[in-house]
Amino acid sequence: MRAQALIFDVFGTCVDWRGAVAREVAAVLPHVDATAFATLWRAEYDPAMARIRDGGRGYVALDDLHRENLHKVARDLGVSAPDDLSHAWERLDPWPDVVAGLRALKRHHIIAPCSNGSIALMTRLAKFGGLPWDCILGAEIAQDYKPKPGVYLAACAALRLPPDQVMMVAAHNDDLHAARGAGLRTAFVPRPSEHGPGQTTDLVAEADWDIIANDFHDLARQLAP
Amino acid sequence: MRAQALIFDVFGTCVDWRGAVAREVAAVLPHVDATAFATLWRAEYDPAMARIRDGGRGYVALDDLHRENLHKVARDLGVSAPDDLSHAWERLDPWPDVVAGLRALKRHHIIAPCSNGSIALMTRLAKFGGLPWDCILGAEIAQDYKPKPGVYLAACAALRLPPDQVMMVAAHNDDLHAARGAGLRTAFVPRPSEHGPGQTTDLVAEADWDIIANDFHDLARQLAP
Repeated sequence: MRAQALIFDVFGTCVDWRGAVAREVAAVLPHVDATAFATLWRAEYDPAMARIRDGGRGYVALDDLHRENLHKVARDLGVSAPDDLSHAWERLDPWPDVVAGLRALKRHHIIAPCSNGSIALMTRLAKFGGLPWDCILGAEIAQDYKPKPGVYLAACAALRLPPDQVMMVAAHNDDLHAARGAGLRTAFVPRPSEHGPGQTTDLVAEADWDIIANDFHDLARQLAP
Repeated sequence: MRAQALIFDVFGTCVDWRGAVAREVAAVLPHVDATAFATLWRAEYDPAMARIRDGGRGYVALDDLHRENLHKVARDLGVSAPDDLSHAWERLDPWPDVVAGLRALKRHHIIAPCSNGSIALMTRLAKFGGLPWDCILGAEIAQDYKPKPGVYLAACAALRLPPDQVMMVAAHNDDLHAARGAGLRTAFVPRPSEHGPGQTTDLVAEADWDIIANDFHDLARQLAP
């Protein structure tokens, strides 16, 4: 049986976080290198989640981790940042193929984010960018963070589908490795400018993912019934 | 501050369960009174949830309660029903004003179901009827059933909004009493044919709800910024 549902990584795969976050940093912190600030801020993302994944801290929504990390990066750079700046993560532009691609995919599949972002963050991001999700899945319903297998499995359980009828779509090979490990199908869509012009990771598919697509238009073509 | 988000009761308020369920019952059980069967099936809904609300049983998704109740009603009537018939609850027609009304409301508000239906059920119902939700809230994220206050409060928490910035929309006065008790704003939209031509309950607003609207078009007009 074909995949009934497609679940998506969001930061990097659906939206360009780097450009938008840098733009909002530049607007309120004119004396810092805004792109470097965005990259440093993003670099705190994984270590902050790692403590929660490891059980060293209970589940805390990414909104709160973003705010904590904002102040850490600002402190390291000797500046002070307004709390509100962490809402920058709710205003990220989709890559150009994403909205039309999701609309096409939605005709024959359930589509939902399976991101580490919270329900609130994913909802506001979808309204900002016009992402036509059918529902919001991901870290919050699992109360844990990817790539823990429970996050992918909680998404399948919420849809009442077995993992082999759900396909994870991501621009990150490690996300797909974890999804495949949990029994899901996998689709890779490269985003070679996610990390800027010098990007060296995730430029190509590093395994025989079920689908390898150039962008969401191509993904919709390959998955058309 | 105005309500940032509107959360909706679904069965009865957004969709006509009675007509559609009766139609599907008639298709597979030609020798029973299909409308009476639908009414009996719906009558088992509240008692099944009551055990869970009271702590006598852990959270079980409404999909499973619908299936259990289907077989109970069939047994009482001396017939045998196919398991699949419980998917009838995923294929309910929206009242005529609902899709256009939700589209108008979505322009200025986050809109989400706050139903006792599961994420899977609400997602499939939205795809069937074209309900343009921004996210799916309700019983499943609270792991409990309305009218327990925790269900309304879990919806607010998932949106990261205080209850007084969230408005519950329902055709049932008791749902709004519970929402108001939890600190939410309230809007009543009557659905005088939900229970058929002899309906005697919820024909009018029974309290001074924040908004009383004729239908979702009227609700959108009253809430327009």
